[in-house]
Amino acid sequence: MGRYGTRDDMIVHEEQPFNAETGLAALADTLTATDAFYVRGHGPVPEIDPSAWRLLVHGAVERDLDLSLATLRGAFEEREVVATLQCAGNRRRGLIAIRDIPGEAPWGPGATGTATWTGVALADVLALAGPRREAEHVGFEGTDVSAEAEPVERFGGSIPLDKARRHEVLLAWAMNGEPLPLVHGAPVRVVVPGYIGARSVKWLERIEVRATPWPGHFQNVVYRLLPEDGRPGAGVGMPLGLVALNSEILSPVEGEAVPSGPTEVRGYAFAGGERYVARVDVSTDGGSSWFQAELLDDLGLWAWRQWRITVDLAPGDHEIVVRAWDSSAATQPEGEAGLWNPKGYVNNARPRVRVHAVDA
Amino acid sequence: MGRYGTRDDMIVHEEQPFNAETGLAALADTLTATDAFYVRGHGPVPEIDPSAWRLLVHGAVERDLDLSLATLRGAFEEREVVATLQCAGNRRRGLIAIRDIPGEAPWGPGATGTATWTGVALADVLALAGPRREAEHVGFEGTDVSAEAEPVERFGGSIPLDKARRHEVLLAWAMNGEPLPLVHGAPVRVVVPGYIGARSVKWLERIEVRATPWPGHFQNVVYRLLPEDGRPGAGVGMPLGLVALNSEILSPVEGEAVPSGPTEVRGYAFAGGERYVARVDVSTDGGSSWFQAELLDDLGLWAWRQWRITVDLAPGDHEIVVRAWDSSAATQPEGEAGLWNPKGYVNNARPRVRVHAVDA
Repeated sequence: MGRYGTRDDMIVHEEQPFNAETGLAALADTLTATDAFYVRGHGPVPEIDPSAWRLLVHGAVERDLDLSLATLRGAFEEREVVATLQCAGNRRRGLIAIRDIPGEAPWGPGATGTATWTGVALADVLALAGPRREAEHVGFEGTDVSAEAEPVERFGGSIPLDKARRHEVLLAWAMNGEPLPLVHGAPVRVVVPGYIGARSVKWLERIEVRATPWPGHFQNVVYRLLPEDGRPGAGVGMPLGLVALNSEILSPVEGEAVPSGPTEVRGYAFAGGERYVARVDVSTDGGSSWFQAELLDDLGLWAWRQWRITVDLAPGDHEIVVRAWDSSAATQPEGEAGLWNPKGYVNNARPRVRVHAVDA
Repeated sequence: MGRYGTRDDMIVHEEQPFNAETGLAALADTLTATDAFYVRGHGPVPEIDPSAWRLLVHGAVERDLDLSLATLRGAFEEREVVATLQCAGNRRRGLIAIRDIPGEAPWGPGATGTATWTGVALADVLALAGPRREAEHVGFEGTDVSAEAEPVERFGGSIPLDKARRHEVLLAWAMNGEPLPLVHGAPVRVVVPGYIGARSVKWLERIEVRATPWPGHFQNVVYRLLPEDGRPGAGVGMPLGLVALNSEILSPVEGEAVPSGPTEVRGYAFAGGERYVARVDVSTDGGSSWFQAELLDDLGLWAWRQWRITVDLAPGDHEIVVRAWDSSAATQPEGEAGLWNPKGYVNNARPRVRVHAVDA
């Protein structure tokens, strides 16, 4: 077993802070196993005594709240949401292949996963606190301290109040029906479906209702899309939030030799925000002609769609390309070349794998 | 003056039913003049006596409503929304350039426009009717009869109830501060910000709350994205709804000779759904390097952004390319080749114009 109870087949990018991505086998499951779920951290994993844990809700509210775990669990309706989390750095490897991105982990397609989350709606907690007229954003602060900021600071981020008032945003204490593991934010984490993973703050201990977005390092400096020649700085670049339409091929893999004839191609596709995956096309000739893949289990608006298709491969080399379409009929950009950015976020180019079909 | 009080410089694609797009000059204004606003119709423009007009609200509701115009205007709070409407066939011309699309108008970039709309929130009317538990969609039917369907039928369409309950969806009787012109749906039209224009049903006379999407021709057969080799049919293809991220270059125009040196490039960009335009990049070398354009007046979440940039053009030929980014950090697909579809919808490829800079 790996650290923090994670599976051995996770791909560990960093030990301290612990950062590990889900392996291809586990990624192909409809729901991602908890012990294979990706971990993205910016500081040491904090140890929190659940019986001593308190959640402070304050800022632009009519009344501050100071809630114990028992109160949080007892005072509000319990809700369950199936949601995909996805790191803004998912698939960064494809951008690094174009030009190196020093200091950033080369995440493959496994900085994402889908779980069932159980908790209470942030909206219900906010309704009790009563956002004041000037409230426009809801900030979250964790217990974890990150040395990536100077001076060091606790990890945090915010979402618009309009999103925070929607019932899919949870303060969650369970994942896939089991108590939330420490490495995933126990005792309570935020789950913001459709937003980059960085907003689903782990080890939550403070909610601040604000007139402006979160001013901390992890929203004001990083997790922002810079132009190709940009340099990170306070307020520089486009703040990330909604997850852009994305997809990945999980099987076959790059360079694989497969028997010629019928070959199954599988993968995932995910549309953030309030969009859903409407169609997935697969090409075996580099993108000249396309076939529609079958969309597998529909887990609802907040989750990815796994997909599959059987294609017929003649002996020889083939380039398999995939393009997902969201419910606005938008599709993915063709290539990664135009997507490179200094922090390596939002690689949502059409995935490609080259395979060699061997006369069987 | 053109038909129905429209300006002479509109580009008329069809006289019966009347279909005309906004010219480039009017498109470059932040708010589109009413008499230059694009018109997309599927049947003869009906003449409606406002004093005799009634709006029926029925279907999966607790109580049916049968409202006069005076009641509609008097019983609910008046609201104003600045919203861009965009036809799903906007920029079809670029797809036709790849392969002809018989029977469909070759819309350029002017099947879109932005206006101030005044009316009441559909949400308020629905609240009075009381959607029943099974309600999931809200259908709209106009007075106009279209011979494009067999047998002929009134134009109609639906949106999800979740969207219908948002306050930006209006039943509107005014446009840019003046009574709604006949050709734009008087006395009352629906305005569904962020959705394809086809859902903003004109000459509204019936609202049907439903468990399922609108079964009529204009939602179940057309306004659906077919695969490249698809053929229209009931329920075939992806139903369109949210408008995909799009942009256009309004100046300079294709083939234009411009003086070398500083040249202003202008255009619009629009992100449908609940997204906004976060950035617009302009390239003068066909897409190899990019500059960020200035985003002009911010009219709110439901409107386009006009943009401009001054680029320096050396004497010679240049290909200007634009890519907009939405608030999920998604950008437009590179080219039109992969977007061609049998009905010619959703051309949201990066716009390109070739210009010749003349030594000044």
